[in-house]
Amino acid sequence: MPELTVREIADLCGGTAQGDFSQVIRGASSLEAAGPEDISFVANPKARTAATHSRAGCLLVDPSFKASADRTLIQVPDPRRAFAQILRRLYPPAEQIPAVHPTAVVAPTARIGTGCYIGPYTVIENGAQIGNNCIIDASVRIGARVVIGNHCTIHSHVTLYEGVRIGNRAILHSGAVIGADGFGFALAGDHYEKFPQVGTVVLEDDVEVGANCCIDRAALGVTRIGTGTKLDNLVHIAHNCTVGKHVVIAAQSGFAGGVTIGDYAVIGGQVGIGEKAVIEARAVVGSGAGILSFQRVHAGEPVWGTPARPLRQHLKGLANVNKIAELKNQVRDLAHRLKELEQQGR
Amino acid sequence: MPELTVREIADLCGGTAQGDFSQVIRGASSLEAAGPEDISFVANPKARTAATHSRAGCLLVDPSFKASADRTLIQVPDPRRAFAQILRRLYPPAEQIPAVHPTAVVAPTARIGTGCYIGPYTVIENGAQIGNNCIIDASVRIGARVVIGNHCTIHSHVTLYEGVRIGNRAILHSGAVIGADGFGFALAGDHYEKFPQVGTVVLEDDVEVGANCCIDRAALGVTRIGTGTKLDNLVHIAHNCTVGKHVVIAAQSGFAGGVTIGDYAVIGGQVGIGEKAVIEARAVVGSGAGILSFQRVHAGEPVWGTPARPLRQHLKGLANVNKIAELKNQVRDLAHRLKELEQQGR
Amino acid sequence: MPELTVREIADLCGGTAQGDFSQVIRGASSLEAAGPEDISFVANPKARTAATHSRAGCLLVDPSFKASADRTLIQVPDPRRAFAQILRRLYPPAEQIPAVHPTAVVAPTARIGTGCYIGPYTVIENGAQIGNNCIIDASVRIGARVVIGNHCTIHSHVTLYEGVRIGNRAILHSGAVIGADGFGFALAGDHYEKFPQVGTVVLEDDVEVGANCCIDRAALGVTRIGTGTKLDNLVHIAHNCTVGKHVVIAAQSGFAGGVTIGDYAVIGGQVGIGEKAVIEARAVVGSGAGILSFQRVHAGEPVWGTPARPLRQHLKGLANVNKIAELKNQVRDLAHRLKELEQQGR
Repeated sequence: MPELTVREIADLCGGTAQGDFSQVIRGASSLEAAGPEDISFVANPKARTAATHSRAGCLLVDPSFKASADRTLIQVPDPRRAFAQILRRLYPPAEQIPAVHPTAVVAPTARIGTGCYIGPYTVIENGAQIGNNCIIDASVRIGARVVIGNHCTIHSHVTLYEGVRIGNRAILHSGAVIGADGFGFALAGDHYEKFPQVGTVVLEDDVEVGANCCIDRAALGVTRIGTGTKLDNLVHIAHNCTVGKHVVIAAQSGFAGGVTIGDYAVIGGQVGIGEKAVIEARAVVGSGAGILSFQRVHAGEPVWGTPARPLRQHLKGLANVNKIAELKNQVRDLAHRLKELEQQGR
Repeated sequence: MPELTVREIADLCGGTAQGDFSQVIRGASSLEAAGPEDISFVANPKARTAATHSRAGCLLVDPSFKASADRTLIQVPDPRRAFAQILRRLYPPAEQIPAVHPTAVVAPTARIGTGCYIGPYTVIENGAQIGNNCIIDASVRIGARVVIGNHCTIHSHVTLYEGVRIGNRAILHSGAVIGADGFGFALAGDHYEKFPQVGTVVLEDDVEVGANCCIDRAALGVTRIGTGTKLDNLVHIAHNCTVGKHVVIAAQSGFAGGVTIGDYAVIGGQVGIGEKAVIEARAVVGSGAGILSFQRVHAGEPVWGTPARPLRQHLKGLANVNKIAELKNQVRDLAHRLKELEQQGR
Repeated sequence: MPELTVREIADLCGGTAQGDFSQVIRGASSLEAAGPEDISFVANPKARTAATHSRAGCLLVDPSFKASADRTLIQVPDPRRAFAQILRRLYPPAEQIPAVHPTAVVAPTARIGTGCYIGPYTVIENGAQIGNNCIIDASVRIGARVVIGNHCTIHSHVTLYEGVRIGNRAILHSGAVIGADGFGFALAGDHYEKFPQVGTVVLEDDVEVGANCCIDRAALGVTRIGTGTKLDNLVHIAHNCTVGKHVVIAAQSGFAGGVTIGDYAVIGGQVGIGEKAVIEARAVVGSGAGILSFQRVHAGEPVWGTPARPLRQHLKGLANVNKIAELKNQVRDLAHRLKELEQQGR
């Protein structure tokens, strides 16, 4: 288990230490759970009370944080980011000694780069190419002619259908299925005929895909996930979607065929996006929202509801619904008074 | 195939038999589909007509049930529960002869208790501990230092990431992924940086997890599922959630990070719960409801809608929306009449 | 790689060619991406502008399409369908040489038909029967007494629990779980007791199941998916559902226990259907709609919203909500004017 002194930590994250520079830190924890050998961090002003009571051996704080002189802490501009950096040192990923497990079935024409770990019962089909320093865990299925970049981590039970292409530094969590057939059928008389799905899927660099996600191959052409984009668990991406760079998609959201998502868009959880809708760069879609087919969502104000509208407009709609009862009473009162006036007039 | 006489069944469930005590029962079925060697049950007064026409060889009924004298039946206080008990006898789970399949890859420092079945192509990593009398089916992946209690059933293609802890009598259905990384990223300039997810997942005793569910490890600390809690299929539990004891969660619901669910809460299907929301003990969340981040749901009246509100309030809102058209007409009528009065006044 | 001349393509799809009959076609593509050796198709009048600019070597068009004389094209009544037909010729599925991979674990009493490919690390339990000409990919788990018809394709990491029955020509995508326990629990004092799930699942002929779908076994009896029905990814079908023939179900929809879906119904994405609801034949449920338990949806107008209502009614409700603000203003104005009249009257 790695350990670091406060001094070493301050050096690592370029911060300014105060208190006991030689304190040894062996773990990282929340403010509430931390003990004297743990480091913790103060993310925002709201956390300051918890910080005061924390037993953490060292706190990462921003320069505005005030503490008693005997408190050991390290000032950094972004405590959360510095904490993440220290976490990577204190909890390094388990080392995998590069090796192809003897039970892995690697087809004769598949190529595997240097420094890779290939786990037991993983199957790599003909023509597949795996870059250097990849970790492919147990029972992964890599289809024919799949191309995988360098420094990728593919967890157990991932399926890559034939021909999909994965960039560098991808992390694919267990059960993810990349490249299954898109959902394309046409009613032909009394039954549906399958429209062949002969395109592929491309994941650019630095993509992370959550557990049990499904990214379908294009009918023709490419379903594309841009550089740096992150998918939470159980996300569905249909055929021919084009997801931009540095997009985040929370769990259980689903995109119908041909959706376009711009760079840096943020998609909440359980969002549904209809066929060929366009989410522009940096747009924000609130959790549970439903985007209609062919709808276009602009950057600026987040959208919410179904059909999705700018947040303030949607909230105003909800608030107005709550005023209907009052409105009914007002109208009833007006009707009474009007009737009285009418009767007086006779 | 097991068989039981009506007399044996009455003894088993502590009921009072009437009719042919020696009738042999070989199966169990619905009232409609049951034949003369099947047992069935009358769950509630609505089912009584179907019961009258049923060809079942024996009926489990509550004491208030009236039947003709020649009908073979067994009176019990809770017919559904007695039926479940008989089902377990008539349809015992397939016996697995304790054995480690020769193709299972068990790491040298993994420990497996007595009476366990370990299926083909299952991989158990270093330091994992499996209790007694567990059934681990084919192609399961059990990560390093995972701890599993006694009498657990883990179906094919389950992935347990390193270090997760599973209590006694757990049932994990196929494709469930326990302990994948939580979805934690921070925008660092022009790209997202991963916040390391170094916590773990704990499933207490008697937890059942549906097929293709995802329960993520905590960023720090523990994602916890309490004793006796049951998850339907395709449920997503994000990092640092704390789910209480004896909670039921229907299919496709998803909880964002840090959600707290109290004991005996009931969560419908396709519910979405936002970050750090709190569902109090015994609260009920209706299917499809959306709970906002930091929202708190009390026990008592079920909640429904998005944002979720007490059921009657939500239904009143829906009903009021349907009255807007009428209200518009009333206002138009009032405006006309008012205009007339105004003109008369001149 | 197969190649076809324009003349051969016209013969294949029964169309009328114009232009260069000897042009060789090696691929298929969208109008925008097609090159001189690609075929493409004009699906509808909106695509005609793109067609004019397309560099495709051949276009499949309907008879009303007008083109310059030098354009090579083939007239067919249904260009999309003809295109699908040509796709199947240009991109034939990878051939699998019939064989049982030496690492497959086939139980002694399992039977496998002729012409089958069984991939590495697939496990087939006792009493399972697989028809002829099936492709069972790597790491599939086929439980005891499962019956599979002819010409089925089962992708990697599919789990078939014991006893489920799959018809002919099924396509099951990776991670699908067929036959896990239904979600049946009853509160027994202070804890939930499992209601044994002893029924099964039947998939009739020509069913396609998307990646990571879950179809649960019936408590008693059968969960049934009718002939020709197609499920997109991540769909959940609970115990005792009866889905008719030629139904399409888009991604992430979920059906609670005992739901009935009529033939040719169309279910959008992320739809939730409550217990024992009935969707009649040819009914259409819009994406994201919520059908209440025991609700009945008729054919004719599509339904939308939660609770789902006929589309026009739902849209009218939404439109009316947007008129509340105006209504409030009108009521305020009426109140003012009425007050004035009342004061004049004194």
